[in-house]
Parts: sequence; C-alpha cells; structure tokens
Amino acid sequence: MAKEKKQEFVTHITPRSEDFSQWYTDVILQTELCDYAPVRGCMIIRPYGYAIWEQIQQAMDSRFKATGHQNVYFPMLIPESLLLKEAEHVEGFAPEVAWVTQGGTEKLQERLAIRPTSETIFCTMYAKWVQTWRDLPLKYNQWCSVMRWEKATRPFLRTSEFLWQEGHTIHATPEEAQEETLTMLEVYREVAEDVLALPVYVGQKSEKEKFAGARATYSMEAMMHDGKALQAGTSHNFGTNFSEAYGIQFQNKEGKLTYAQETSWGTSTRLIGAIIMTHGDDRGLRLPPRIAPIQVVILPIAAHKPGVNEACEKLEKELKDAGFRVKLDDRDTVSAGFKFNDWELKGVPVRLEVGPRDLENGVVTVFRRDTCEKFTLALDGIAGEMQQLLDSIQQELYNQAKTFRDTHTRPVKTMEELGEAVQEGFAKAAWCGDRECEDKIKDQFNASSRNMPFDQNDEGCSDTCVCCGKKRKHIMYFAKAY
Amino acid sequence: MAKEKKQEFVTHITPRSEDFSQWYTDVILQTELCDYAPVRGCMIIRPYGYAIWEQIQQAMDSRFKATGHQNVYFPMLIPESLLLKEAEHVEGFAPEVAWVTQGGTEKLQERLAIRPTSETIFCTMYAKWVQTWRDLPLKYNQWCSVMRWEKATRPFLRTSEFLWQEGHTIHATPEEAQEETLTMLEVYREVAEDVLALPVYVGQKSEKEKFAGARATYSMEAMMHDGKALQAGTSHNFGTNFSEAYGIQFQNKEGKLTYAQETSWGTSTRLIGAIIMTHGDDRGLRLPPRIAPIQVVILPIAAHKPGVNEACEKLEKELKDAGFRVKLDDRDTVSAGFKFNDWELKGVPVRLEVGPRDLENGVVTVFRRDTCEKFTLALDGIAGEMQQLLDSIQQELYNQAKTFRDTHTRPVKTMEELGEAVQEGFAKAAWCGDRECEDKIKDQFNASSRNMPFDQNDEGCSDTCVCCGKKRKHIMYFAKAY
Repeated sequence: MAKEKKQEFVTHITPRSEDFSQWYTDVILQTELCDYAPVRGCMIIRPYGYAIWEQIQQAMDSRFKATGHQNVYFPMLIPESLLLKEAEHVEGFAPEVAWVTQGGTEKLQERLAIRPTSETIFCTMYAKWVQTWRDLPLKYNQWCSVMRWEKATRPFLRTSEFLWQEGHTIHATPEEAQEETLTMLEVYREVAEDVLALPVYVGQKSEKEKFAGARATYSMEAMMHDGKALQAGTSHNFGTNFSEAYGIQFQNKEGKLTYAQETSWGTSTRLIGAIIMTHGDDRGLRLPPRIAPIQVVILPIAAHKPGVNEACEKLEKELKDAGFRVKLDDRDTVSAGFKFNDWELKGVPVRLEVGPRDLENGVVTVFRRDTCEKFTLALDGIAGEMQQLLDSIQQELYNQAKTFRDTHTRPVKTMEELGEAVQEGFAKAAWCGDRECEDKIKDQFNASSRNMPFDQNDEGCSDTCVCCGKKRKHIMYFAKAY
Repeated sequence: MAKEKKQEFVTHITPRSEDFSQWYTDVILQTELCDYAPVRGCMIIRPYGYAIWEQIQQAMDSRFKATGHQNVYFPMLIPESLLLKEAEHVEGFAPEVAWVTQGGTEKLQERLAIRPTSETIFCTMYAKWVQTWRDLPLKYNQWCSVMRWEKATRPFLRTSEFLWQEGHTIHATPEEAQEETLTMLEVYREVAEDVLALPVYVGQKSEKEKFAGARATYSMEAMMHDGKALQAGTSHNFGTNFSEAYGIQFQNKEGKLTYAQETSWGTSTRLIGAIIMTHGDDRGLRLPPRIAPIQVVILPIAAHKPGVNEACEKLEKELKDAGFRVKLDDRDTVSAGFKFNDWELKGVPVRLEVGPRDLENGVVTVFRRDTCEKFTLALDGIAGEMQQLLDSIQQELYNQAKTFRDTHTRPVKTMEELGEAVQEGFAKAAWCGDRECEDKIKDQFNASSRNMPFDQNDEGCSDTCVCCGKKRKHIMYFAKAY
C-alpha cells in the first residue's frame, strides 16, 4: 500500500477552532442534512439526513425486537385532563406544550396537547388492558414525532418538533422494571458505541435532573468536539408513580391487587447532532461506516477515456452485490476536484478513484475519510477487502473520539479545578449528594450536565465533596451541556 | 397428503352475513389489531396491527427506493398563511383541519394547522431549493401521520389521525410528471395485488372527485366483502397548479424561467382495513403470507409427552433459520382448542401441530387458514416445502378475492340495473362525462365510488350514457364507497 497525505481542504466551511457553532450550521446546511422550516423552531430533515436516521432506526429497532419489544402507534393528541393526572409530570411539561383548541369549524370543549411524550396516554391504555400478572410484562415502543415548544432551537439538537422513539413498559415487580431500565440503557450504549462510534459515559442522573415523574433516570453522555456534553439517550424507572395516578392495577399470583411497575426510555434525532459534532472536522462530516447512507463513492477519473466508465460500473455492481451502500458519481457537470470536496464534505467513509492509469496498473486509488490517507488497492478482489477497510474506519473514528473524550475528562479536587475542567470537557469530582452543592456548582460554572457514572472509579478525586468538603457520596461527571 | 375438513368455528364473532359492520368491529378488537383511543376519532394501533403496517411499509418503501425516491421528514405544523396559497386546496381541506393556537404559555400570532396533507409545505421548500433544470426532478416521500377532523370515524378506514406515506415530486416537463403519477399508481397496484392479495381496478377519478388542487387524480379501488368499494391508494398530477401558487420556478435548458410540474401520491393504514374486509371470514382474519406478522404458528400437542417440546423447538429454529416468521405457542395456561381458535382468529396462514402420534409417524399436521384444510407433511425437509405452501396460500387468497370481485362487478345498461348492481358491488356503465349525470347517479343510488378504469373494455355496456342517453365518453365503475 503506497500512502500519501492529501491536502485539499474544503474552503467554504468555517473552521471549528474559529467558531464551532457556525461550523455546525455550515456543515448541516451545506451537506443538505436539513434545512430551516417556515415554522417556528422546526426543521426539515432532507434525504441525506433522513437516510442517517433510517440507519439509526434500524440499529435500534432490531435490538428492541431482539429484547422482546413490540412496536405500536398511539395518538399524537392527548386530552388535557389525561395530561394532568400525574402532578410532577404536568409541571415538567406543561410550559412547553402546543395546544390544539379548534377542530375544523368547531371550538373544542377540552384542549388537546400535541404529545411532548406519551407516558400519560400509554398509562391510560395499560390501565384498561392489564388485569392479571399473566398480562405482564407489556413492552411497547413507538417511533413518532413529539412537540416541545422550545424557546432557543438548533437543528437536530433542540427543535420544537423532533423524531424519536419512546419505549413504555410495565412489569409485575420492581426488580423486573429496574432490569428493563438498565437493559435499555445498555442497548443505547451499544448502539452509540458500536454503531455510531460515540463513546459515552453511562450512569444515573441526580434527583434534581431526573425526568418529570420518574423515581430514577439514567442517561448516556457523549462529549462534543467543543468540550460540551450531550445527553444522547435516557432511560427512566417510574416505579408505581404513574400506575398509581392512572390506576394500573393487576392481580398478582397470590390474587392481590397490585400496582404495576413502569419504565420509559427514549432516543431521538439528536443522535445525528452528536455524530456531526463528535466526528466532523474542518472538511465537513465524517460518518461512521455502519450508519453512512453511502459507504463507498466511486469517482471515474478522465471518464471519457476508454474503459473507465465500464470499470466503474462493474466495480459499483460488484460492491453492491457484496452488500455495501455504494454510489457511482458519474456527473459530467462538475469537475473531479469538486466531487472530491463534495464527498469529503458529506463524510463518505471511502472514496474510490478509477482512472486510466489505475486501470493500467490493475488498481484503484482509495481515500479514507477518517485519516485522509490515500493509497492504492488491487482492483481484483476489492469487494473482499472492503468490509475490513470499513471496519477499520469505524474503529478509528471510535478511537479518535474516545481519545478526545478521555483527554477532555479531568478528575478534580477543588472548585477552581472543576471550573477550569468544565471549560473544555468533563470534570470528574466527588459530591456529597446534597442539592445545595449541586446547584452551587451548576450556577457557578454553568455545569448543566451532571451524571453519576456506574463506574465509580475515584482515581484523582478526593474523599470529600468538591464543593462543601463533607463526606463524598458519589463520583459525578460535571460538564456544560447541549 | 391426507386431507380432512376442520369444523371448529370460533363462536364469539358476529357472522358477516348477520352484521358486517359488527363483524368488522369484533375482528379488529378481538384480534387486538387496534383499540379505541381516549381521543375523539383516534385509534391506537396495537402490536399485531402495527406489525402488519411494518410489512406494508417495507413492501412500499423498497419499491419507492427502487424507483428513485428518497425519504424525508417535514414538520407536522403548517402556518395558516402557507395553507391558504392554493385556493382549491384550502377549500378542500380547511373544514377538517385541527388548529394549534397556543404554544406553551404563549398565544400564537398565527394559527398552525396540523398537516392534513403536506403539498403546501413541500411546495414552499421546493421553491427555495430549485433553481435550474439540473436540480430536477426531486422525488421525495415521507412516512408520517396526518390529521383530518372527521365527523364519523371507523378504525383503519377513517380516523381523525392516521398513518400514511405521502410522495411529493417535481419535474421539468408535463410528460415526466404524468409518467411519475402513473408509475406510482402502478407501484400501488403491484403492492396491493402481489403483496396484499387485493385485486384492484386502476383508473382515473372524475373531475368532481379529484383531489383538491389536482389536475388529474388516479386511484385504485378494491371490493370489500359487503359489496362496498374502498379507495386504497391515490396518485395526483398537479401540473403547475401548486408551483404557480408557491412560485416553484426553474431555468430550463434554454435558460427560460419555467414553472415546475408536480405530483403527489399516498397510501395509508386504510390498507389494513382493506385486508381485513377482503380476506376475513367468520372465524376472523385471514392474512396473506407476504404481510402476515406470523406466517407459521407451531402448536405442541400433549406437550408433556416426551420429545414433543424438543421437536417443536427444533422445528421453530429450522423455519426461522430458513427466513420464515414463526411463533411457537408454548403457553401452558390455555388448552389446545383455545389456541386453535386464537390463531385462526388472528389469521395466521399456516398452523403446524406436533403431537406424539405425528412424531411417531415422522409428520406434522398442517392447517392452512385460507381453505381450512388439514393434512400431514413429512417433518423431514418441511422448511423446504414451506415457501411453496405459503405461495399457494397467497395465490389462493388473491384468487378468492378476485372471483368475489369479478362476480360482484356487473356491466349495466339502465339506471335500474345500475341501482341493483351497486347494492352488491361494482356497476360498470357508460357515462357521457357530464357532471349532472354523475351527480344524479351518485345521489339516487349513493354511488359514492366512481372510477374510470384504464381498461375501457365495454363488454355488456351500452354506447350511450346510462343516465341521459347521450353519447358515451367513458366506461365508469360505480359503487357505494367506504
């Protein structure tokens, strides 16, 4: 393999170091992942963005089914009276609900909420469907959109409407519900790390930060390239909070009426934002092969020369037949240089260039987007080597992201150190468990991301709370959050 | 193959002949396809119903992609001002729009419609994205839910919210747009006939019946078991109607500003209603194998006898490995008789019974749901024969439906005959093309379904309009419609 570094940068994207936020906007618009909608706070997911979402959906959905879940569809409208039954939940969501007050020409008697999440309507039906322990568990999931009337929005990261999946399950015992809660968090971690190449910290949220109505909330937290944390998935154990409010009772094996245990868990199109901000570089996107809508792009070089187009078409067919997602870019309206930039911008993991000289030598020129290395491979048998190449890119992207995350995680012992650490990543610190200290740290350093990792490794931390000096209860990751 | 007719009917479903409407309600609720929602006119699609929808989605989506379409997601909310730009369209949809007037604590300046369909917002973005002929065509589709504030609702057939796909495409020339319109109708026909086993008449709607804002609407019409027609999919050619209203212009190859040509096409969860009412019988559902969530159910008989459970598990694995959707019903809480009824009710195409006597003889007892025949097959190599058996069931269901449809289609020459024919199916009649005659026939016989088939075979019809006696312009199918 002859290797040489390629040095043609795309010039029309703001460098990350200059203005990360503008870089993000440039990338999402110029790669046509999405566009702003003529509706306040909403976005349009364009084909390239939606194709990524379909890959994520597939990775998630197959795992949901493998763990015994079934898909359903519940109405998007929820009557106000249903929403009001669980007090904490209402309080959490009411300020950001969009209300339907008119249907056709008729003014509605009762306002209907566009679902901000669906616990309330799932619970209403579970109360109807469940009679005995034989009916349990019910492990349902739905893919849909939800609406939260957000003030400040950013495409993929926070929009008024977004696409997600929401799992809602009920169980006979607290143990089963807790197992479910953690199983689904583990499914999320697996998809994040193995499919999206996003290293994540998994752990529990504080009392203050848990979901409205939950007894415990768990999350996975990823590190973006600007040093901010992004909550990439959550899993909640409600205990009997909702089943008491909605009357989900069943006869247990001993014949006694018992409240059911409930969980819910969700991930959203936000994951696309995480992929962009974790892997992207100054040339644009870098997509992990396992979710790249196009894994390999083939570019004919000097396409007018005999044999070039034919060789490209043969190569395309060979790779497609081998199961890869391939695109042959045979546009004759743009230059090869434009195409190079275009596909680097779009983050396609592998580019294959096929020109007359390559064909003479029986090779193709390979460019891998993760390292920007260029080298040649024998044309003969390339389909057999492609999986290995893509796996190597997948692993490399994960490794780069993990190195970045690890070097942007700092154990700290003082408030001053904590303040410095959250400027560029995660601060890992001892915490006494008191709300007062949590608030103080949050307010002082804008540490809006807080997670108590399952891995309570305390290396480099103190035995006493970083804030008040009292005995430590937890190791906590603090960061600024998206 | 030893055959015997099985005679155990499920008793708790109203017979179709007694009350078709009640039969339908019994079937959808007892098979747990769906349930009524605590929201006016909405339904909940339960796991078994949603699994059918996923099969339909897959059949459609793979064909959309094979014909060059890409999936996207557009916002569910549409500002009133956008909706108002195309006059006919507004008039058609405004009476059934649900309006959002409040977001969080804020009263909105402008009302937002929950999309009843998305032409208006697609057109708004197309106007922004399209500059030259090089940008065309754009062939987009989205899977989403839409909301229409219906007065009378029935699960799957007509609900306030329903799931669907809507394709929206723009093209440079009228010819391309017309080709697209008909290509997608053909995709629908293929899915309906080859996958859902629903024979359909394909053709054009009258001027009166076309979609609000369309220049031409095409549809496929299926025949339900009560003799009513069901419109199962539509495809519209808008010409430049919308692009003029929304300003979708492009520079053509000659450098001249030109309005784009537009199409849209849709199918919905209504198709599930069509499957139920076409194939169902007095025992419940009969699902075509290609969309059945469970194609083969395995029932252990005398499961406590040595070897039975093991044989069932081995069989399950063998069939799963061969790619079939299989369920082993090893419940020990219900009797074998209950299971028989249960799976017949749920319409599973093939039931395999495995008991000690079967095992002694090296066979399984096979029950096919379409014909209710029972016979035995050698256990050894059954996976190899399963595809053929399922194909045969698929074909048989189609044949039965086609025979029913054909015997419920009557060419007629007089109004009296037409009136009789639409009592039990399609009346095929000559029509002068005048709105007045169309209205008269519709009003007199409640012939709310009207379609001019592409196949204008006039056998048995007259040369003059069945209503006014003027020269005939079209052959038209008339029926009562869902």
